[in-house]
Amino acid sequence: MSEPVYSRTRPCRVAEVPRWDLETDVAVVGFGAAGACAALEAVRSGARVALIEATSGSGGTSALSGGEMYVGGSGGTPQQRAAGFQDHTEDLYRYLLMAGGPDADAAKVRLYADNSLSHFEWMQAQGLVYKNSFIPQRIVEPFTDDCLIWSGSEEAWPFVEQAKPCPRGHTPQWMGLGGGRYLMDRLAERVAESAIDVRYDTRAVALIAEESGRVQGLVLRRDGQDSFLRASRGVVLCAGGFVMNQELMRQHAPQLMRANMPIGTVDDGSGILLGQSVGGHAIHMDQGFVTLPWYPPEQLIKGIFINARGQRFINEDCYHGRVAQHALQQAGDRFWLLLDHEIFAEPEFGQFAKITIGATGDSWQEVERELDLPEGALVSTVELYNRHAARGQDPLFRKAAKWLRPLTQGPFVALDCRIDHAAWFSFTLGGLDTLPTGEVLDASRRPIAGLYAAGRTACGLPRWGAGYSSGMSLADASFFGREAGRRAATV
Amino acid sequence: MSEPVYSRTRPCRVAEVPRWDLETDVAVVGFGAAGACAALEAVRSGARVALIEATSGSGGTSALSGGEMYVGGSGGTPQQRAAGFQDHTEDLYRYLLMAGGPDADAAKVRLYADNSLSHFEWMQAQGLVYKNSFIPQRIVEPFTDDCLIWSGSEEAWPFVEQAKPCPRGHTPQWMGLGGGRYLMDRLAERVAESAIDVRYDTRAVALIAEESGRVQGLVLRRDGQDSFLRASRGVVLCAGGFVMNQELMRQHAPQLMRANMPIGTVDDGSGILLGQSVGGHAIHMDQGFVTLPWYPPEQLIKGIFINARGQRFINEDCYHGRVAQHALQQAGDRFWLLLDHEIFAEPEFGQFAKITIGATGDSWQEVERELDLPEGALVSTVELYNRHAARGQDPLFRKAAKWLRPLTQGPFVALDCRIDHAAWFSFTLGGLDTLPTGEVLDASRRPIAGLYAAGRTACGLPRWGAGYSSGMSLADASFFGREAGRRAATV
Repeated sequence: MSEPVYSRTRPCRVAEVPRWDLETDVAVVGFGAAGACAALEAVRSGARVALIEATSGSGGTSALSGGEMYVGGSGGTPQQRAAGFQDHTEDLYRYLLMAGGPDADAAKVRLYADNSLSHFEWMQAQGLVYKNSFIPQRIVEPFTDDCLIWSGSEEAWPFVEQAKPCPRGHTPQWMGLGGGRYLMDRLAERVAESAIDVRYDTRAVALIAEESGRVQGLVLRRDGQDSFLRASRGVVLCAGGFVMNQELMRQHAPQLMRANMPIGTVDDGSGILLGQSVGGHAIHMDQGFVTLPWYPPEQLIKGIFINARGQRFINEDCYHGRVAQHALQQAGDRFWLLLDHEIFAEPEFGQFAKITIGATGDSWQEVERELDLPEGALVSTVELYNRHAARGQDPLFRKAAKWLRPLTQGPFVALDCRIDHAAWFSFTLGGLDTLPTGEVLDASRRPIAGLYAAGRTACGLPRWGAGYSSGMSLADASFFGREAGRRAATV
Repeated sequence: MSEPVYSRTRPCRVAEVPRWDLETDVAVVGFGAAGACAALEAVRSGARVALIEATSGSGGTSALSGGEMYVGGSGGTPQQRAAGFQDHTEDLYRYLLMAGGPDADAAKVRLYADNSLSHFEWMQAQGLVYKNSFIPQRIVEPFTDDCLIWSGSEEAWPFVEQAKPCPRGHTPQWMGLGGGRYLMDRLAERVAESAIDVRYDTRAVALIAEESGRVQGLVLRRDGQDSFLRASRGVVLCAGGFVMNQELMRQHAPQLMRANMPIGTVDDGSGILLGQSVGGHAIHMDQGFVTLPWYPPEQLIKGIFINARGQRFINEDCYHGRVAQHALQQAGDRFWLLLDHEIFAEPEFGQFAKITIGATGDSWQEVERELDLPEGALVSTVELYNRHAARGQDPLFRKAAKWLRPLTQGPFVALDCRIDHAAWFSFTLGGLDTLPTGEVLDASRRPIAGLYAAGRTACGLPRWGAGYSSGMSLADASFFGREAGRRAATV
C-alpha cells in the first residue's frame, strides 16, 4: 500500500489526515527574521507554537544580510536625533509610499510608519544593541560597528521632492559586514528561551485544509517520514521568496535572472506555493531587488554610468540598487562607470563585486575606442554631461549638485560592470497578497481562514525593485512577522 | 434561507451542487476566437458542447482586432509563395521562439510552426476568404481587402539574425480595418450551424470541482439566477485576459497601465481567476502587448524616436508594438518621432492615434528649445545618428540600412507621441500555464483534470511584450483553442 504523496501545490484535506502526530495552536514555517518574530509574538500571546525549519539551524536568508533595518518616524530614533535629524512620520510614510511603486500598499505603509520607532525599540528589547553613531558618507553597509547610514534614495530625485530626506538604515553593533547573523542570533536566543517547539530539518510539504478552505495544519516531512501537525489557530508562512527556484524565476521574473548572484538559502518558493494551493493570491511576482555594490567610496557617485550604447540611464546619486535596477532594464549586458583622475578610486567592494578597470585613456575618445563603442557614443554622452555639470546642473537625470562636476581631468577610466563579469545580487519581492495583520488574501481580497504570511513569502512594503532601500526587507519581515504571529495567536 | 454565494476565486464542490440543471460533455467559456474554435472542434469530435458567453453576442475581443493571423512555415502559404517568399518551418519556429522571450514555450512553438499552414487552411474551410495579395510596404493593417503584410519585426535586428525574414500577417478579404469582426462572423456561422448549445448573457461564476480537484462543471448565472452545468469531459476557459480589471492590472502589470487605451470587451480576468481557484498556475502576469500606431507611411521609419531625455532607445524599423514596448520601459512620459522635411508625412493613423506636431524648426536646436529639452540633449542625439547614418550605419541600435539617412533637410519636425496625449493601446499576455493540448497546469506543471484554457486566458505563444507581432494572438487563440476543444472532447 503506497502512502499518498503530499504536495506544496495541493492541500491535504482534513478527511485525508491519517492521524494527528502533533498538536499546536500556531505553526510557523521558516526560521528567518519573519518566522522568529511571528513565533515570539505568538508564544507571548499565550499560544502553543511550533516553528518549522527546513535547514539545521536558524537564520534563513535574513542571516545573510547586513542586518540593517529601515526605521524612523515619530521624530526619529536616538541615532537619527543625535545626528541632527528629526524624522517626521509623514516623511517616512511618503518615502515608503513612493518606494512601494505603482501599487504601494498604503495600509501597510501607514501601520509601519506609525509604529516603526516602537518596533525598533522592541528589537532592542530582544537583545539587539545599536551604537549611537552615524556615518554621513554614502556606503552600502558599515565595515565598522556603526549604526546609522543613508541606505536608500532619500536625497535623490525624485524621492527628495516628496519627502524630507533622513538616513534610516540602522545596523546593529557588530564589527564588520554581516550583521544579519548577529541579528538572527539574538532572535534565536529569545526563541530558545521560550516555549516555542522548534523543529529543524523538517519541511512543510503541504497545507492541511478543511473543505471550507480553512487551514488546519501542515504535513511535515523529516528523514523521509511524513507527520501531521494540527495548528488549531493558524499557520504562518515565513519561508522566504523564490530566487533559488529556477522554474518559478523563468515563469515570473526572467528579467531578474540576468543578475548572476541570487541571495538566498532555501527560497525555493515553497511558502508562496503553499499559500497558492489554498487560493492565496500571489502578486508582483516579476519584481525583485537587484544590486551591484559599486560605491563606496562615495566620490564614485560623481562618475556617470553608461549602458552598452554609451547612454546614461539614471541619476547616479540614487541608492545602488536603484541604479542596478535601471541598468537591468537597459538592452545589452555591458555597463561602465566613467571616472576621471580626480575622482578615481578602487570601489571598496571591487574584488567582491568583481568590478575591474575596463579601459583607460588620456582622452574620452581613447576610452571609447578601447571599449569598442561606436564613434561618438561615449564622447557625446560625456560632453553633454560635462556641459551641464560645469553649471552645477543635471537637467537630464537630476543628480544633485553636490555630486556634479565635469569629468575633465585625465587620465580617464571606465570601470567594467558587465552583467556577465561583475557580481549582480538579487532576490524576489513578489509574494502572497496579505493584510497588514498577515492574513493571506485570495484574488477577491478575502482572507483565507487560518493562513498568514510574512517576509518575502508575502508581498510586503518592498514590492517594487526601483524603490528598494537597504533595510526594508528586514524591517518588513520582522514588523509584519510580529503582526502575523500576534494575530494568529489571538484570533 | 440564503443561497450560497458562488465565486470565481473559490470552486463550488460537487457535494454542494443542489441540482444539475444542465448536462453536457464539454463546456466552453467565452465566444471569442479561442472559444469558437474550441467549441467547433469539440462538437465535431462527437461531444455535446455548451458555449457560455457573458455578453449578448459572439466575438469577444477577437472581433475588435484587425483579423490578422500570424501564419507560415511548411514552405509558405499561397500568399507568401505568390509574393516570392518560401517560408521554412524552421524560420517560423526560430522567429516564434525569439518572440516568446526568455521563457518561450518551445513545445507550443514547435506544434504551431509545424501545423500553422494546415491551420490556415482549416480557417478557410470555416468560410474565411483571403485574397492572394501582398502589401510590401510596412503598415499596421490594410485599409483595403488585401491579405499579406509584414506584421512583426522579422526584418529588424535582432530577429533578422536568427530567422530568415518572411511576411506572415494574413488578413481576411474584408474592405478596410476591422477584419476581426468578419473573422468572428464566419466562425459564429459555423457555430450556429452546429449542435453547440450557445448561452448568451450568461456568466460562469464558479468552477465545480470534485474533492480530488477534477473539474466537473460550472455554476452559471443569468438574470440573477444560478444554474448548475455538469460538463462530464471538461471545461475550456477562453474568457480573455484581464486588461479591463483595474485591480488585477495594479497587482500584476502596473507598468502596462501607462497605456491609456485597453483593448478588451469583458477581459476582467475571470477566466484566469477561475483557473487559479482550482490550483491553475498563472505565469508572466506582468507582460502585455502595447502599441502606438505611428506608421504608416513607412517613410516615418526613417525618423528616430527619442524619450524625455532626448535619447534614442530602439531600432525604429522594429514592429510598432516593439517600439512602443521599449518606450514604455523608459522613464518619463514624453516621446517624439523626429523627422526632417524629406521624410515628413502625416501618420495615417494620426487622428485616431492622436499623434500631432509637437515642434518644428529650421534647425534641430530650434526644435530642441521648442520641446523644452535641455540644451544639447536632442541635438547630440541627432548629430550622432546622422554621423553614422551618412555611412549607412546604425551601430547603436542596428536599424537596417534601407531606413537610414541623415536627418539634415530642414525644416525639422517632432511628432508628439506623449503617453498622456497619444493613444497607446494594450492588452495582457499573462495567463494560465497550459500544455499545448490546452490542459491547465498547476505550479508543479501537473495537469488539472477536466480543465483546459486557450486564448488570452492562457499564457500562449505570445507571452513577452517585446516580441509581440500582429496576428500572434488570433493565431494562438484559434490554433490552441482547437487543440483544447479536441482534447477535452476525446479524453
